[in-house]
Amino acid sequence: MQMIIGGRKTSSRDGKTIDVINPANNKKLDTIPMATEEDVNEAVVNAKEGQKEWAAIPLMDKEKIIQTFVRLLEERKREIITVCTRECGKHVATTIFEYNQTISVFPGYIEAAKRLDGQLLVPGSEPGHDGKTAQDLIMVTHEPLGTVAAIVPFNAPMLLYAYKVAPALAAGNAVIVKPPTDNPLTDILITELLLKAGVPGNALQIITGSGSKVGDWLLRNPGVDAVSMTGSTEVGVGIAGIMAKRLAPCVLELGGNDPFIVMPDADIDAAAARAWGSRKGNSGQICISSKRFIVHNSVKEAFTQKLLELVKGIEVGYDDNIEEIMDEAFSHTDRTNAKGEKMGALISEKAAEQVEEQVQKTIDQGAKLECGGRREGAFYWPTVLSGVTKDMDVVKNMEIFGPVWPIIGFDTMDEAIEIANASDFGLSGCVMTKDWKLGMHVARNVQSGGMVVNGSSVYRNQMQPFGGQKMSGMGNEGLTTLHEMTKIKNIVLKGFLQ
Amino acid sequence: MQMIIGGRKTSSRDGKTIDVINPANNKKLDTIPMATEEDVNEAVVNAKEGQKEWAAIPLMDKEKIIQTFVRLLEERKREIITVCTRECGKHVATTIFEYNQTISVFPGYIEAAKRLDGQLLVPGSEPGHDGKTAQDLIMVTHEPLGTVAAIVPFNAPMLLYAYKVAPALAAGNAVIVKPPTDNPLTDILITELLLKAGVPGNALQIITGSGSKVGDWLLRNPGVDAVSMTGSTEVGVGIAGIMAKRLAPCVLELGGNDPFIVMPDADIDAAAARAWGSRKGNSGQICISSKRFIVHNSVKEAFTQKLLELVKGIEVGYDDNIEEIMDEAFSHTDRTNAKGEKMGALISEKAAEQVEEQVQKTIDQGAKLECGGRREGAFYWPTVLSGVTKDMDVVKNMEIFGPVWPIIGFDTMDEAIEIANASDFGLSGCVMTKDWKLGMHVARNVQSGGMVVNGSSVYRNQMQPFGGQKMSGMGNEGLTTLHEMTKIKNIVLKGFLQ
Amino acid sequence: MQMIIGGRKTSSRDGKTIDVINPANNKKLDTIPMATEEDVNEAVVNAKEGQKEWAAIPLMDKEKIIQTFVRLLEERKREIITVCTRECGKHVATTIFEYNQTISVFPGYIEAAKRLDGQLLVPGSEPGHDGKTAQDLIMVTHEPLGTVAAIVPFNAPMLLYAYKVAPALAAGNAVIVKPPTDNPLTDILITELLLKAGVPGNALQIITGSGSKVGDWLLRNPGVDAVSMTGSTEVGVGIAGIMAKRLAPCVLELGGNDPFIVMPDADIDAAAARAWGSRKGNSGQICISSKRFIVHNSVKEAFTQKLLELVKGIEVGYDDNIEEIMDEAFSHTDRTNAKGEKMGALISEKAAEQVEEQVQKTIDQGAKLECGGRREGAFYWPTVLSGVTKDMDVVKNMEIFGPVWPIIGFDTMDEAIEIANASDFGLSGCVMTKDWKLGMHVARNVQSGGMVVNGSSVYRNQMQPFGGQKMSGMGNEGLTTLHEMTKIKNIVLKGFLQ
Amino acid sequence: MQMIIGGRKTSSRDGKTIDVINPANNKKLDTIPMATEEDVNEAVVNAKEGQKEWAAIPLMDKEKIIQTFVRLLEERKREIITVCTRECGKHVATTIFEYNQTISVFPGYIEAAKRLDGQLLVPGSEPGHDGKTAQDLIMVTHEPLGTVAAIVPFNAPMLLYAYKVAPALAAGNAVIVKPPTDNPLTDILITELLLKAGVPGNALQIITGSGSKVGDWLLRNPGVDAVSMTGSTEVGVGIAGIMAKRLAPCVLELGGNDPFIVMPDADIDAAAARAWGSRKGNSGQICISSKRFIVHNSVKEAFTQKLLELVKGIEVGYDDNIEEIMDEAFSHTDRTNAKGEKMGALISEKAAEQVEEQVQKTIDQGAKLECGGRREGAFYWPTVLSGVTKDMDVVKNMEIFGPVWPIIGFDTMDEAIEIANASDFGLSGCVMTKDWKLGMHVARNVQSGGMVVNGSSVYRNQMQPFGGQKMSGMGNEGLTTLHEMTKIKNIVLKGFLQ
Repeated sequence: MQMIIGGRKTSSRDGKTIDVINPANNKKLDTIPMATEEDVNEAVVNAKEGQKEWAAIPLMDKEKIIQTFVRLLEERKREIITVCTRECGKHVATTIFEYNQTISVFPGYIEAAKRLDGQLLVPGSEPGHDGKTAQDLIMVTHEPLGTVAAIVPFNAPMLLYAYKVAPALAAGNAVIVKPPTDNPLTDILITELLLKAGVPGNALQIITGSGSKVGDWLLRNPGVDAVSMTGSTEVGVGIAGIMAKRLAPCVLELGGNDPFIVMPDADIDAAAARAWGSRKGNSGQICISSKRFIVHNSVKEAFTQKLLELVKGIEVGYDDNIEEIMDEAFSHTDRTNAKGEKMGALISEKAAEQVEEQVQKTIDQGAKLECGGRREGAFYWPTVLSGVTKDMDVVKNMEIFGPVWPIIGFDTMDEAIEIANASDFGLSGCVMTKDWKLGMHVARNVQSGGMVVNGSSVYRNQMQPFGGQKMSGMGNEGLTTLHEMTKIKNIVLKGFLQ
Repeated sequence: MQMIIGGRKTSSRDGKTIDVINPANNKKLDTIPMATEEDVNEAVVNAKEGQKEWAAIPLMDKEKIIQTFVRLLEERKREIITVCTRECGKHVATTIFEYNQTISVFPGYIEAAKRLDGQLLVPGSEPGHDGKTAQDLIMVTHEPLGTVAAIVPFNAPMLLYAYKVAPALAAGNAVIVKPPTDNPLTDILITELLLKAGVPGNALQIITGSGSKVGDWLLRNPGVDAVSMTGSTEVGVGIAGIMAKRLAPCVLELGGNDPFIVMPDADIDAAAARAWGSRKGNSGQICISSKRFIVHNSVKEAFTQKLLELVKGIEVGYDDNIEEIMDEAFSHTDRTNAKGEKMGALISEKAAEQVEEQVQKTIDQGAKLECGGRREGAFYWPTVLSGVTKDMDVVKNMEIFGPVWPIIGFDTMDEAIEIANASDFGLSGCVMTKDWKLGMHVARNVQSGGMVVNGSSVYRNQMQPFGGQKMSGMGNEGLTTLHEMTKIKNIVLKGFLQ
Repeated sequence: MQMIIGGRKTSSRDGKTIDVINPANNKKLDTIPMATEEDVNEAVVNAKEGQKEWAAIPLMDKEKIIQTFVRLLEERKREIITVCTRECGKHVATTIFEYNQTISVFPGYIEAAKRLDGQLLVPGSEPGHDGKTAQDLIMVTHEPLGTVAAIVPFNAPMLLYAYKVAPALAAGNAVIVKPPTDNPLTDILITELLLKAGVPGNALQIITGSGSKVGDWLLRNPGVDAVSMTGSTEVGVGIAGIMAKRLAPCVLELGGNDPFIVMPDADIDAAAARAWGSRKGNSGQICISSKRFIVHNSVKEAFTQKLLELVKGIEVGYDDNIEEIMDEAFSHTDRTNAKGEKMGALISEKAAEQVEEQVQKTIDQGAKLECGGRREGAFYWPTVLSGVTKDMDVVKNMEIFGPVWPIIGFDTMDEAIEIANASDFGLSGCVMTKDWKLGMHVARNVQSGGMVVNGSSVYRNQMQPFGGQKMSGMGNEGLTTLHEMTKIKNIVLKGFLQ
Repeated sequence: MQMIIGGRKTSSRDGKTIDVINPANNKKLDTIPMATEEDVNEAVVNAKEGQKEWAAIPLMDKEKIIQTFVRLLEERKREIITVCTRECGKHVATTIFEYNQTISVFPGYIEAAKRLDGQLLVPGSEPGHDGKTAQDLIMVTHEPLGTVAAIVPFNAPMLLYAYKVAPALAAGNAVIVKPPTDNPLTDILITELLLKAGVPGNALQIITGSGSKVGDWLLRNPGVDAVSMTGSTEVGVGIAGIMAKRLAPCVLELGGNDPFIVMPDADIDAAAARAWGSRKGNSGQICISSKRFIVHNSVKEAFTQKLLELVKGIEVGYDDNIEEIMDEAFSHTDRTNAKGEKMGALISEKAAEQVEEQVQKTIDQGAKLECGGRREGAFYWPTVLSGVTKDMDVVKNMEIFGPVWPIIGFDTMDEAIEIANASDFGLSGCVMTKDWKLGMHVARNVQSGGMVVNGSSVYRNQMQPFGGQKMSGMGNEGLTTLHEMTKIKNIVLKGFLQ
């Protein structure tokens, strides 16, 4: 495929490309351009014009464009879901989930834009600088930021494209998308459909290539007014530093090492089932999947056995019957995931190797491998680690982005909270207990952007202002607000109310 | 005076001090400690405990503390206003204005805290990850950031202390204040009264010394969770870079070069009067004072003559009758400024020298000195510059922080907007016209955080979300919100509504 | 057609029917049942069950039902638009406008429901009764009202059905619709589609017959918890009295006698064009059409001449080419009205006779007939009356629901405001002037629910909280709120936050 | 004392008066005028002017007036508290509680007024009637209602005066107060202080006399635009009917028969203590005091014994040491009630006789008197009734406004909810249980304006939108909103944003 600059599909100026591989079977799917710095600069110049053009389109017409886009997407959903599944190496059910969310996130942000009311402050509520404010019409209004760079991660390239591009567009910004290097095809296809639906070619562009080069060129360009990025904390911190020089807003959704706390009074079967479900999804490559299983010592053994039973039942592999699963999924109206799915590959062999190393490091630090620990290419087998202790890296800042369940024991509630807070991350988390008040206490004391009582940490409602605390992010994303994609202007008509 | 760490008045560990001078007469007023890095670190450690202690105090009791503080401040207002006036070298009327605002800003943020409601999202509005969200109690809650560094600027040390410390405290944070190096005494006195009123000694501390050292140590300390700073854009960008490494929130209120646009249909007398008033206040040392007078060529001569007449009437000098002015000011209830005031000194001789250089540079670039241009010590005489053209630095990014009126001509509305937008700053601005629709058009197209139609740019209502666009700042301050001083936590009680 | 009770299409218990006539050609279109009191009571009993059933359906599933409904409506739009046009005797373009609004009002209220967040009040902000509120989880939640009676008027049976039924359903209420007696067919068809889409048969019912009987039985039934009605002030006041006995909420959108004020500086051609457009739509049968043309004496003659020219150009008659107009309307995407349309009949011959009498009365009181004044059956020719004076009924409380333009002169702004406020009605209004500040002054001083500066009073944005002041109504309708269709419950979990 | 009309203290036109009696000792305290209809009409005419005058005062100046009022009230608090205690015959601790709330309710509503922002709707979000709304400035603004009648009940004449008068004034309305007939003196004194502080004499007036005459004349006067009343449901329904004729808004806080549900797992000691506390306050004359004690049969005996023990400990009588109790209360800063207080008289001997009759009726219907049942003058001894069954009036619509605890047994949760909902009232209620989820379920299913889990029904936070469902009221009162005291005006500047 090609990238899309100024509405035109194009190769890079120097013709260089990168291969896109299906990690599940190592087959090459396509190539994409490796953009040059000039390509990037051109896109930024375009965006300045594109933003004016797009902002001038009344919201009701933007809405029609998004409605057309959703229709186009519906028409081509099987093709796009297939491409996404293949370039991610994952199970199609995960992609269907992403797809179902995506088609509501786009119109959802248009609805948010319709409600992005300005305020009329109460005149005369205080004297101001001249003592005479009672006759002033004092308005608080919202303006687009300008050009937003959208840096999309590999783990949910469709849905996280939506969570970045939809609010930026709905708020009247131009957007330049940098899709994930390993699996950019889905994002190119979606971009194409948005343009076809009517988004001006300069208002939405997609440039491909590696983050360290293309992403860097993009963000260092002074024409980029803001960034919305999901990715690793390391990269996120670098981005924050670049943007700080221009005082440009960042929405960063970064890493997590989410605690899953099991209190002694919890329903152990239910807890194990939620632990299992939370970590196997997308082969463990979910920012908010539970990653540290902090279990009261009195129930640790029971929990571990139950979990092992479930984890051992996971089938690892590759789905060929995509069409069949889609038939089934689209034949009913509820949007829950397909059942009986296999666990797919990680995004790349390199990624699987890193999980392998992290597991080995944890074993070296004293943990016991209860099951799993096996890698084949980009596949990594679901792995339970027992005997994990507070001093190990995995309990602190080593996020494992794969299907691994490290189990840490504790004796008191305060100890559980302390372990949970021992990480620099603070994305999501959860606690299982029959005592709701205790659950609330834990939820309020674990430092993180989200906490679930009696559910897994994998909880993201579209309306929630989703985001991390500590090193897990900056800003919040959700259909309730477009504040992250707008800036405020105070306009006063002095003496207008006389 | 001493700084206040952990509730104790203290010298620096190494005993070093800095002199505090009245810039109007060069007399030494006092000394303050030059804090060491260890002093700073101690304060940060204290703050961690102090924050917990302070957050645990119910809001109704925090309110009582603030009420007590206001009462104590009222009792000692004459002393504090005098100290502030002296260490700033300014006219007491300006300090009285600051004081009157300060006593409403503190309770105002308590009122904001009372209304910092969490949200209960609508259950079942979308399927979430498991398709079952209709029985979940989904809460969006607000938490304090932790320890906030408050960096107060020299130009309004009382009021801007209030705008930083009041919201941080109201939201449950601990605060470490770094007052301005040249005039820190007012801030120390206010801090003392807050502590006396009941704020825990570890929850509010003040450390003195130079920004480049003490400020830097403070912000680089990982125990500082956020910063609220008013100051220069240069320093602000540096701070943003430091905080970016920890993804820590910044509220930055920085420089401005605010346009004052006069359309041909404007009431020229009124425009000149507002231009005069906007720039003479606090000897021109106000971030939102109008700094570039962009006047339609058809009325430029008339405007200039009227302005000159007013500016030449400004008396420069030093007030000895502080007591008398205070008597008058406190004898009536309206909070407008004293009349017939003299224009005071700038904050330091160094500051006045810089204004002198900037004016000279502008003359060297071709401007004509219509009046003023004189400096004596820290005093700088009000100065009108005509013949200023778009290419000169003063029309772009050279902010003059003193009583200088550069006048630039224009021919079309688009040209006026273009000149206004030629600066990297975007703080405030204004336009004078009888045509409100035209005024609205200009207001919407000048890139800045605030725009006033038919008033000067010096417009800050306490309820407004005050803040700059472009290089003039990040975040917004105002009584309507505590969002900048809090972070979000999503708490879900899964299945609680069955 | 039949009415629909408990999901079943049914005749009345006693078999009585009413004829539905096309007022444009006096042809009988259909019959509807004249419901008995037992029929009404049955529907109310059903509704109690239906409300529980409907409220228990998660909002995401309600949304799917509404999406299905919109799809079904799209499929049958030509049929429904034709029926509506015929039973109203109006021009099809008006119906197409209604239709286009209707399909966005329904999903719009689902969006409103998604955002009907509860609040979490700040604990400990005040002592409450026991001095200990800092550990309480204090929730403000919204509940459906129960069973809502929706009384739909004849003038916009499709759109005003939507504005009543959509919010009531979105908020989880059961609804019993009482459609207009003269033209109930459209409402029956829409109800059918909502049920087909999945709204439970007990949650949405429609009962037909006269308002004085069927409506009265319905509202006096204690099982009806609230009413949302559009109609005459006389009927509205009666309803308010009935509901007051049960303290049951009323949303009443009633009559208006909207002023159209022309200041001497206005663009007279534009003013006349808007006056013309505002009053000819739907043959003048719009609650917010401008009804009193209050024109400055200096421009009255010019305005009258221009208006006469436009009004005389209106063609009265009957459209046979409905299909052709629909073809054209649906061939492009913008939602503006068809051009070149004829002015249709009033809702009934009786209605036209009433207009005839009101015009005659005004002439008897001294007004001069400039054009029109002719009636044939249910058609009434567009009529301009000059020389209208303040003391005449038409300037006060006599609302003419037909295409009549009475012109009243004035000399001063205060006099114009006084005339505008001389009516007990206060629905909408407008003022034409080049001076926006003056326009704002008039807008703020005319007592009405809406005021437009430089547009006609026929302004209703879906997001606006539309509603009248004085005798023009109670409550507000619009997509921004569901408060009128819900009640508040405060739930406190005392000590839950310890 | 005299009433206050147009700023003047005055007798009634015909000189008639009513005696004000201390019900605890039957001593005459003072007389008040029995207003004539002409007196009432005069006040209404004044109010129309007063409203304009008051609305024109900038909010910051209204705030200063309220601050002055609070200061004056503080100065005269001992006198006013004493008068209130005497005319109510109650314990001074209750009055001190009222007083402490009152001084925060007044400024609290000024804060609400400062935040009564208008909205700027998003232009172009939908086509409106002309398809062109993208250039319109669409404002939603709030206006005062006009003249508000404030009908204050006898049980908390100071605090409920505040909850009616403070919001009405803060929103810019004129107010005419009708104080309780039996104990109007406190309200006259407070009114005096508000006027002294600066509220214009025509903007706040107080007229005395019986509700059935004076109140009726007032509400039937077309110059009264709205009513805010607390009182019985019977009177409230009558008021709603009167106001319905003019479509005038009513805020009605009426009767309650609040359920207190004790689940089998509850802490019985705590439940009994809360039951005791909830009902003895103000001698049981609180609208939201728990009135029906619905206790699981398995713990009914234990609960009854514990409650009896507590109830028998209540001392009935008359306090002479008011000064001493006030000394103690004002010597510390926390606002909790005085300890060791006696239970005072009811508001009148007639009121006590009614309680006596209601208790006798319940005994006649089969209940058993466990203690109390004694009356002396206006004193009624605390009374526990066991063996109360669902069919008795006291379990349905007979509200006992005195210190009576009827205990009803139940077997299942559904039965408890059914009993709770068997009353036409729906004001507040509570449930005691260790199972928070169960508590939430009960709270959501009992039909009432407020429900407390693990606290008594006597829960009213100033920020809550307090109000009843069913026959317990219309509208909500609380510091979060002024919507009940304002009406909406939509103002559109059409084409202003071009």
